[in-house]
Amino acid sequence: MQIREQIEYYQKIFSSFGALEGGGITRLLYTDQWYEALKRLELEIKKVGFKSEFDNVGNLFGIIEGYSNEFVSTGSHIDSVVEGGNLDGQFGIVAGLIAIQNLVKKYGKPQKTFQLVALAEEEGSRFPTVFWGSKNVMGIAKKQDVINIKDKNGKKFTDEMKRLGFKFKEENDRRNLGKFVEIHIEQGNLLENLNKPIGVITAITGQKRYDVKIQGQANHAGTTRMCYRKDAIYAYSCIVKEAIEKAVETDDLLVCTFGRVNIIPNTVNVVPGVCEFSIDCRHPDKKILAEFSKWLERRMDEIAIKHKVDIDYKLWMDQEPVPMDKEMIDLIEKSVKELEFDYEIMHSGAGHDSQIFAEFVPTGMIFVPSIGGISHNIHEKTDISDLEKGIKVLEKTLYKLAY
Amino acid sequence: MQIREQIEYYQKIFSSFGALEGGGITRLLYTDQWYEALKRLELEIKKVGFKSEFDNVGNLFGIIEGYSNEFVSTGSHIDSVVEGGNLDGQFGIVAGLIAIQNLVKKYGKPQKTFQLVALAEEEGSRFPTVFWGSKNVMGIAKKQDVINIKDKNGKKFTDEMKRLGFKFKEENDRRNLGKFVEIHIEQGNLLENLNKPIGVITAITGQKRYDVKIQGQANHAGTTRMCYRKDAIYAYSCIVKEAIEKAVETDDLLVCTFGRVNIIPNTVNVVPGVCEFSIDCRHPDKKILAEFSKWLERRMDEIAIKHKVDIDYKLWMDQEPVPMDKEMIDLIEKSVKELEFDYEIMHSGAGHDSQIFAEFVPTGMIFVPSIGGISHNIHEKTDISDLEKGIKVLEKTLYKLAY
Repeated sequence: MQIREQIEYYQKIFSSFGALEGGGITRLLYTDQWYEALKRLELEIKKVGFKSEFDNVGNLFGIIEGYSNEFVSTGSHIDSVVEGGNLDGQFGIVAGLIAIQNLVKKYGKPQKTFQLVALAEEEGSRFPTVFWGSKNVMGIAKKQDVINIKDKNGKKFTDEMKRLGFKFKEENDRRNLGKFVEIHIEQGNLLENLNKPIGVITAITGQKRYDVKIQGQANHAGTTRMCYRKDAIYAYSCIVKEAIEKAVETDDLLVCTFGRVNIIPNTVNVVPGVCEFSIDCRHPDKKILAEFSKWLERRMDEIAIKHKVDIDYKLWMDQEPVPMDKEMIDLIEKSVKELEFDYEIMHSGAGHDSQIFAEFVPTGMIFVPSIGGISHNIHEKTDISDLEKGIKVLEKTLYKLAY
Repeated sequence: MQIREQIEYYQKIFSSFGALEGGGITRLLYTDQWYEALKRLELEIKKVGFKSEFDNVGNLFGIIEGYSNEFVSTGSHIDSVVEGGNLDGQFGIVAGLIAIQNLVKKYGKPQKTFQLVALAEEEGSRFPTVFWGSKNVMGIAKKQDVINIKDKNGKKFTDEMKRLGFKFKEENDRRNLGKFVEIHIEQGNLLENLNKPIGVITAITGQKRYDVKIQGQANHAGTTRMCYRKDAIYAYSCIVKEAIEKAVETDDLLVCTFGRVNIIPNTVNVVPGVCEFSIDCRHPDKKILAEFSKWLERRMDEIAIKHKVDIDYKLWMDQEPVPMDKEMIDLIEKSVKELEFDYEIMHSGAGHDSQIFAEFVPTGMIFVPSIGGISHNIHEKTDISDLEKGIKVLEKTLYKLAY
């Protein structure tokens, strides 16, 4: 089969697990559809010569042995977001499956051992935990982080894990990955805007996330004069406007998002008394991100004082940028050049399993474009010609690593 | 009984219907607690010599006949908001009940006929309709406005009305009010800030309410550069900041509130694609209010264009200011002066049943202060000495009208 046929073949199969009527997928950790996807994957990899192995928590590994015990790994996560697309994570697994089987078919037994990795969970879309798959592979997942958590229907993580026959790993049990490369859709619109089919990833962005609460005073919208108000949404709006304009003025790569906001009482004729909101700011440079967030905290305090409201903010996520391995970056770039594809050296604005692995093993990432930048959406799509190009880059990279 | 004892007596009784454990009241149209409050009111007014009469929809009238058929009416609404206080509306009924019985006891049969009015519904707190009580009294309520509406639990207005034995009135069946005066808590903090116990109301504010929808584009918070965004909350924040600052700069009496906002998808790591929000702006001068709203509409369009988002706004409430009757204002002011109370000539920033009546009969309003300006809240409170002063003003005004 040609690569395009292989893509269509595997995408059709795996898109059926958790498929939604209107398109797209909901395939969440420790659900039946999730399990069926893994079992089917196990079947398909065996068909083309992989040995398969589950770990305790549900990560699936496919091995094609090489002459040596050194590993070359590729893959991505098998779970999706709620009402997500069928490329986010899934394509990284499909691409690895295609690339490895094609290499073995063409070049025979590799020097190093190929390892296809299907990670159990990355998105945090069912339970309040992320990177459950990759953290367990690296032996850094913590039992206490999940032992009491539930999904939004009240189902316990531990019950759901046990239900399908999975269990906790021993602490510090780290799987051998050797070197790791992941191909993923961009989930942004830079490659599309630049009309380039390949992204060579330098780093995964750092990000800081705040939960903020402004306490003003709820009041009657008609009878409370403006001078007597402590309007939480007015203070909020001043923060949003200023922060976004500051981000734009600071640096092209700095992003700042006010994605979530809830006000109390949220009624047309009551001055908002409370405004609770989130801030998500990211940059691949640690210093720039730190300066921005320091500025932001100072301004929030100053704006609160000016508006006579109380403000309380909690930095609950503080993730440093994770650089990819220099040699891996160079290797991927070399592969793209040899294939004569247009490419962009860029960072990833989204988190990926590669950021977990990169702390332990040489890791690199390849991006393919997202049409309209759309992801986490049933309409998530990438031109098949770009998917094909991505797989060719992956093949060449894996070849250079393993043969 | 002294007025204070009468206030305590009646407030204790009526505050028990729909009482909440933590204090305050929830007493909504066509609920059992609402009905029991009315039945008890009927009992209490009969005790002190009123003849009682329900109309079709649940308004309750108490009559003490005078020598002539000319009516002098007072009262307010018996329903409350969800988790409201026990003065909003209720005090107007209690005050009227106290004032009339005291006058009759002191001065005997009045020249004109006293009519105490307990209006079935004003707040719009259960069904999406307001002034159901007063509009029916005036014969301007429309059957088609309520025939299909439901409460948030899906119960039909018409079923709930019938359940308690009420039904629609004939169209245009207007009750004789003669002249109407209503005493109500201010629900604002002006009187408190000025340290005055009485407000003499000149007009009920005009108000315009908009529902607005900004359509931007939801996008990944990490991978979408700022220059590629169509951020609905950024556009919203620019509108809020500018509108509030414009209102403050325009006129002391102009109020502008962004009370309700909901964004989609409302997730920390997604650029908001949709922002739906309300605007509530009020002023007792028709021209100033019109100019402000015209400016606001123009600016919203301009801001939307600048932010490359779509905006759609619907003006769904457009209420002109309703002036109170000049002679009634003078009469109330005269009464206050004779009692030697401090008072403020002011408008009402909130809507009241009086605005419905004022279009048909000479109407006046008296305010007493709200502690902290708090209303629509279980902590709604007014000093009993101010409640007492209010009733004295009402008594004197009713005396001048009826004897």
